[in-house]
Amino acid sequence: MPYVNIKITKEAVTPEKKAELIKGVTELLQNVMGKNPQTTVVVIDEVDTDNWGIAGKTITERRKKGL
Amino acid sequence: MPYVNIKITKEAVTPEKKAELIKGVTELLQNVMGKNPQTTVVVIDEVDTDNWGIAGKTITERRKKGL
Amino acid sequence: MPYVNIKITKEAVTPEKKAELIKGVTELLQNVMGKNPQTTVVVIDEVDTDNWGIAGKTITERRKKGL
Amino acid sequence: MPYVNIKITKEAVTPEKKAELIKGVTELLQNVMGKNPQTTVVVIDEVDTDNWGIAGKTITERRKKGL
Amino acid sequence: MPYVNIKITKEAVTPEKKAELIKGVTELLQNVMGKNPQTTVVVIDEVDTDNWGIAGKTITERRKKGL
Amino acid sequence: MPYVNIKITKEAVTPEKKAELIKGVTELLQNVMGKNPQTTVVVIDEVDTDNWGIAGKTITERRKKGL
Repeated sequence: MPYVNIKITKEAVTPEKKAELIKGVTELLQNVMGKNPQTTVVVIDEVDTDNWGIAGKTITERRKKGL
Repeated sequence: MPYVNIKITKEAVTPEKKAELIKGVTELLQNVMGKNPQTTVVVIDEVDTDNWGIAGKTITERRKKGL
Repeated sequence: MPYVNIKITKEAVTPEKKAELIKGVTELLQNVMGKNPQTTVVVIDEVDTDNWGIAGKTITERRKKGL
Repeated sequence: MPYVNIKITKEAVTPEKKAELIKGVTELLQNVMGKNPQTTVVVIDEVDTDNWGIAGKTITERRKKGL
Repeated sequence: MPYVNIKITKEAVTPEKKAELIKGVTELLQNVMGKNPQTTVVVIDEVDTDNWGIAGKTITERRKKGL
Repeated sequence: MPYVNIKITKEAVTPEKKAELIKGVTELLQNVMGKNPQTTVVVIDEVDTDNWGIAGKTITERRKKGL
């Protein structure tokens, strides 16, 4: 029954990598907590680097500065 | 005062269908729980089928397999 | 496949009312958008009135002032 | 350590305005609650006006009616 | 930089199990997508079985019926 | 119309501090982006330190180790 939401920056991730991540998270919830994989839902949100901030700066700004 | 977030897969849903869903959810919260519709907020997120997984597989993979 | 998150203030809502809301939202998604009810997930979060703000004031403050 | 998610309607907001908002929220959490800005994460979601509803109507509908 | 939110039903999960899940998700994001574990944030929400619905029924109702 | 969700660790934050944070975020959205404070909603979630992880460890573990 778990619901998992994963937010990452938008970086041309392939469908194969997304599928691998979804499979891995679902297995992890089964192995660690005994959750039924049949009802485990995973949603990935890809966020523009202008819209993601850490330490008060957007990722776009941080990359320009080499942070 | 309720806030409702609805996540669905991206499937060329018309603005009319979205409006109907938002109206319906708002009325439901008023009828079932007496919530004031004036301050009920509903946000719909449409998610790419590559980014949505259930039972360890993306919706894209599931549709290819006829699941 | 839809996932719905409903946030409401914590007000001693009965389990029966929650069940009615969950049933209603699931039916609405089926009727309006043809979504399969078997895989529709609804999660209700109940939020303390100190932790919810609208128009710059918490619900606790607003109720004290009769807003 | 805080995580902040801000949802706004999609309105051609400039990267500079987003950066200003992220900086402001991070400083506010430091000033009001003593939170470490180094680990404060802010994510902005921009939502289509067809997908956002208040008072039972989408923002698109409300603007057409001058609300 | 990823942010992960995991929602599970409230079932007396031990702190050790939660720690194992957080460690596993963080490693998975590093292994599959090359994400920096230092800035990966994971938040677990435990939800009352009255507040979680699937297929139009709460988990509380489903368990009573042996579903 | 903005909706803001702030997640912080559960640390005996006073209602006054929460009210100050809600007021501050609402004003910031008005000043930076011209958003109408009347329809700005802010919800604060307080998360147990066992349920929050960064860099693969829960906050509970990190504090025990003096991180």
